[in-house]
Amino acid sequence: MKKQTPLPPAGVRLTEGLAQRMQQLVRDKVVPYQWEILHDRVEGAAKSHCVENFRIAAGLSAGEHYGMVFQDSDLYKWLEAVAYTLEVFGDPALEAQADEMCELIRLAQQPDGYLNTYYTLCKEDGCAQKRQEGYEPCRVAGLPDGSDATGERLPGLGNRFGNLQQGHELYCAGHLFEAAAAYAAATGKRDLLQTACRFADYLVKVFGTGEGQLRGYPGHQEVEVGLVRLYEATGGKRYLDLADYFLSERGRKPLYFEAERKRKGFCDLFGQPALYLPTYAQIHARPVEQTDAVGHAVRALYMYSAMADLAALKSDPAMAHACAALHRSVTERRMYITGAVGSTHVGESFTGDYNLPDDTVYGESCASVALMMFESRMAALTGEGGPFDTVERAFFNRVLGGISLTGTEFFYVGPLAVDPAACRENPDLHHVTTVRQPWFDVACCPTNIARAIMSIGGYAYAEDGDTLYVNIPLAAEVRHAGHAVRVEGEYPYGGTVRITALADGQRVRLRQSGLAPAVALTLNGSPLPLAAERGYLILPELRLADTVEATLAMAPHYVAAHPGVTNNVGKAAVMRGPLVYCAEQADNGAGVAGLAFAEALACEESEAFTHDGAVALTVKGFKAAFAGDEALYRNALPVWEAAEIRLIPYYLWANRGEGEMRVYLNVR
Amino acid sequence: MKKQTPLPPAGVRLTEGLAQRMQQLVRDKVVPYQWEILHDRVEGAAKSHCVENFRIAAGLSAGEHYGMVFQDSDLYKWLEAVAYTLEVFGDPALEAQADEMCELIRLAQQPDGYLNTYYTLCKEDGCAQKRQEGYEPCRVAGLPDGSDATGERLPGLGNRFGNLQQGHELYCAGHLFEAAAAYAAATGKRDLLQTACRFADYLVKVFGTGEGQLRGYPGHQEVEVGLVRLYEATGGKRYLDLADYFLSERGRKPLYFEAERKRKGFCDLFGQPALYLPTYAQIHARPVEQTDAVGHAVRALYMYSAMADLAALKSDPAMAHACAALHRSVTERRMYITGAVGSTHVGESFTGDYNLPDDTVYGESCASVALMMFESRMAALTGEGGPFDTVERAFFNRVLGGISLTGTEFFYVGPLAVDPAACRENPDLHHVTTVRQPWFDVACCPTNIARAIMSIGGYAYAEDGDTLYVNIPLAAEVRHAGHAVRVEGEYPYGGTVRITALADGQRVRLRQSGLAPAVALTLNGSPLPLAAERGYLILPELRLADTVEATLAMAPHYVAAHPGVTNNVGKAAVMRGPLVYCAEQADNGAGVAGLAFAEALACEESEAFTHDGAVALTVKGFKAAFAGDEALYRNALPVWEAAEIRLIPYYLWANRGEGEMRVYLNVR
Repeated sequence: MKKQTPLPPAGVRLTEGLAQRMQQLVRDKVVPYQWEILHDRVEGAAKSHCVENFRIAAGLSAGEHYGMVFQDSDLYKWLEAVAYTLEVFGDPALEAQADEMCELIRLAQQPDGYLNTYYTLCKEDGCAQKRQEGYEPCRVAGLPDGSDATGERLPGLGNRFGNLQQGHELYCAGHLFEAAAAYAAATGKRDLLQTACRFADYLVKVFGTGEGQLRGYPGHQEVEVGLVRLYEATGGKRYLDLADYFLSERGRKPLYFEAERKRKGFCDLFGQPALYLPTYAQIHARPVEQTDAVGHAVRALYMYSAMADLAALKSDPAMAHACAALHRSVTERRMYITGAVGSTHVGESFTGDYNLPDDTVYGESCASVALMMFESRMAALTGEGGPFDTVERAFFNRVLGGISLTGTEFFYVGPLAVDPAACRENPDLHHVTTVRQPWFDVACCPTNIARAIMSIGGYAYAEDGDTLYVNIPLAAEVRHAGHAVRVEGEYPYGGTVRITALADGQRVRLRQSGLAPAVALTLNGSPLPLAAERGYLILPELRLADTVEATLAMAPHYVAAHPGVTNNVGKAAVMRGPLVYCAEQADNGAGVAGLAFAEALACEESEAFTHDGAVALTVKGFKAAFAGDEALYRNALPVWEAAEIRLIPYYLWANRGEGEMRVYLNVR
Repeated sequence: MKKQTPLPPAGVRLTEGLAQRMQQLVRDKVVPYQWEILHDRVEGAAKSHCVENFRIAAGLSAGEHYGMVFQDSDLYKWLEAVAYTLEVFGDPALEAQADEMCELIRLAQQPDGYLNTYYTLCKEDGCAQKRQEGYEPCRVAGLPDGSDATGERLPGLGNRFGNLQQGHELYCAGHLFEAAAAYAAATGKRDLLQTACRFADYLVKVFGTGEGQLRGYPGHQEVEVGLVRLYEATGGKRYLDLADYFLSERGRKPLYFEAERKRKGFCDLFGQPALYLPTYAQIHARPVEQTDAVGHAVRALYMYSAMADLAALKSDPAMAHACAALHRSVTERRMYITGAVGSTHVGESFTGDYNLPDDTVYGESCASVALMMFESRMAALTGEGGPFDTVERAFFNRVLGGISLTGTEFFYVGPLAVDPAACRENPDLHHVTTVRQPWFDVACCPTNIARAIMSIGGYAYAEDGDTLYVNIPLAAEVRHAGHAVRVEGEYPYGGTVRITALADGQRVRLRQSGLAPAVALTLNGSPLPLAAERGYLILPELRLADTVEATLAMAPHYVAAHPGVTNNVGKAAVMRGPLVYCAEQADNGAGVAGLAFAEALACEESEAFTHDGAVALTVKGFKAAFAGDEALYRNALPVWEAAEIRLIPYYLWANRGEGEMRVYLNVR
């Protein structure tokens, strides 16, 4: 049993504050921009061809598939973001666009339910992508049935599922399932859900331990959370069982992927042997036995999310135990202060405990979205509020930092220390872009950010029967299934949260955040005791017009990392509530690394350059001044001159041109 | 004209101190060990097959070539080190081994003078190495004459010089030439020199701008310095001209390598497109026009060395100007405090100004040997003593650090900050080995370190007519061409240098080091003025038994890097004379990154664990203590507890098992 369930977007109307502004940006800019992108109508952006692939597969257009094997997922994630947008804002014109896409997807579906434009269009040649890149084509299609290494290949599969490790068919399926469930919930229209179920039913036939079934599982996890969502949307237990199968089968020896790679005609799409490491795809052990977060961070966290779902829905204590260990591994030892995860670009992967370099970091936007998914599920699994600290950390810093103020440019990678010259000149940093990009060849992040922002209401507000959980106190009017409260305040900037009951008998639990803890609580102006249980403040049942006011600790303060984070010993970051701050060249001139905080924090707040309520900080500190010469090495320490250090919230960095940026600065 | 010429090893008998001990180690351990390695008689070390390749090519054994295209160079560099060893120490048994090798090399030479076991043995298949690695073979041999892209291919070349960019035939030739010149000088035996000249004469025929000649040049520079050396050993001006040709042709548009790669049948040996970048092989501009140190650091510095040679020998001001710019680029902006160079493992390359990360650094041993070569030539070119600061920095820190105290284990990469767990767990650090290795598949470094140590006498002492230059005041008896002095002192540890004339009329110039500058000078006990010119202290002409004593500034002191070295702002290293110090886990326990120096250096000297005169330091400082919990992030700065920090010379690190190590520590 899940101990809390997110409220649907329709139940949470954000009324003010950063999250609301971001949702407006998604509606006004991001969704329309991405619509144009998916139709290849934005000049200067990487080519998408995503909609065109569907049109070709649907027989509405002629041509060849273009793009990655996972190109379809961009449309699915856009649709998911649109579903939330429609649910929050309503927009008939947008809904018409989305309906058109749902119909296009239906038309691209094969008669037996299979749905993937890449493998549908590349019938003759399983490696169209590589051919486009100038590689020799190699054949996957036309393998005699039953000829693969597992000996269990279904007749009639053709080129489908011949490269589960890299092919991403199940990954795309998962995003379709998430989009379909969201779209049905938002609009009541079930066409896309039916398309999704037809595909899912086909997968139920193809995959499993039964005779003639493929005993494979996806290289890139995602189908599992999608199947859970489909189960929750339809009640079809077979979908839950298939998710369970995928998780159970993973890591079973001998490894399916090793057999798959040896099959005659196997086409290696990526050609990087490091990506065959069992840890990369989390097949080094059965999920239930995993304890450390390893490998590709997005794959890992999508899988952990599904594990937490299954652990709750099937009341599986062993799986819950594994989830708890993985939760601790990520959040207590392998996560950046910004909620970024994945310390290396090699395999976009986790590395080791406390190995959190600020410049060579990967910290993909998608990984932090996936972290929000996993951690919110950990709260649902355990009933504890604590995991939402990580949801807030990831959302307000790394995820929001992934998108520009214009809504049309995006970061894939999330560095905490940037020297633009070094990023250009040192190949070890070539994966770090110093300015946001209009689109990507691998375009997973922009749509993921959009869907995360548009679904933030469900992270912020959840329910368990007649109890309403305020996980993130975003200003909102909340009305759903008997819950009726108004929450006011400028969170994450404002330090006051006011909860007013809009009906009698409101049972509300306000999360006691570790990042902005409540320090005082009143009911209709009279003090309440600050009693917390499992991470939630206990409030009395509210009658109509009762108002609870919480005062949050919002003073800026230093944060130091564990000494195992060797690159940051002696340094500190500044946080204010859930927001991590950074120093940018735009405010401080060149030489940001030469700034140092004073031991005692003396700090003034002011309006940030965005003039939207965001708070900038001016901190007393120092700047290293070196003797007048330009010597590379000098027999003297620098002189530290008093300096004011201007800090802005990390999520706002790189909105004023290219420049240096640092989260951690020296302290002296 | 060169403004100074190294003394031959026979002229400089080291009498005490670190350098003398290292030479004894090379004689006693390194040279015999490498002899065994080259004969594949060391278990557990990477296979060499180097001597066996020559035996097969000579018709003395049957089999296939094994190893890299540059495998031959390992024997040549061993022979060069042996030549110096024989010259310094004499050793009939070793000389007999070396003679045997000279004869073997002669036998492996082809009738027309060509000499390279890889291409001789791999006639049928230019990609034997790739075939060994499981790649499909591709053919270079059997190309119709004149069929290559340049249209200038000589008849009869067969598979030779078909891949100048990667094939390393000219690189190996250069090392042969260096070895041959050294061996003739050491032993008076000219057999290897004749072999070398036969090969060089063949190259003179093959390469050039004349009709039917190949207008190519080497992918990996080295032949140029070898040819200069052959010229100096034989007076054959054609060798100097060929070196000049190679330097002049480099960077000419259209690029030879681009045409070469397009030739039908070209076999890509390495398969890394990044290695095609013009900067990688320093063909982005004509050498005479180059200003910034870029690309593969060893290639670059071997080329700059040859450029400095040519600039001096041909009195070429334009080339001298380029050398000066490259010298400044390296030493003023792109060199580590240890004399390591090459900031990234990607292409083993220079990156940008002040981009000197301490953990992801490459800093190959060979690159620092090459830096010694270049900088000593800059002194010869300019008459300035300053470049020897860099020679000392590279030699006493990075080069000596490349070899274990046992003489049988070696570093390829030279990090300044090591966390063994991070090196294991983060692929961005996988190129860093935390313990020295018995041998390498690419084994350029061990023999290079050996030859550098055995030739240090020629760096330390040079002459210009009747003037003797003391560039590094190593304790030695110096007798050569009328020079006759005794130099005493424990340099680089001792702060007193005593120079005693062993004959009348000794004109001596003692270098005024930037790393351990003389602060007082006496002649037979009476003070002398401290007058320096072009980086050398001016001493009166010495009569027999005159003694000059210099007192050097040998107090340990902090060194801070330019603020552009962003990773080290707020940190300091400790140096004592030319020696850089480091903190090791073996002395300081785990958590070396958590140590911090006090602002004012309080320091005690003591005997290092080697008990050989090496000085360890105990520095007053602090260690970060964090609140009792294990939180990844905490809202408090660490408490800094007083701590004594034990430092050892960097070159001694990793001789007491695996552990953390740092050169730079925080200062507070």
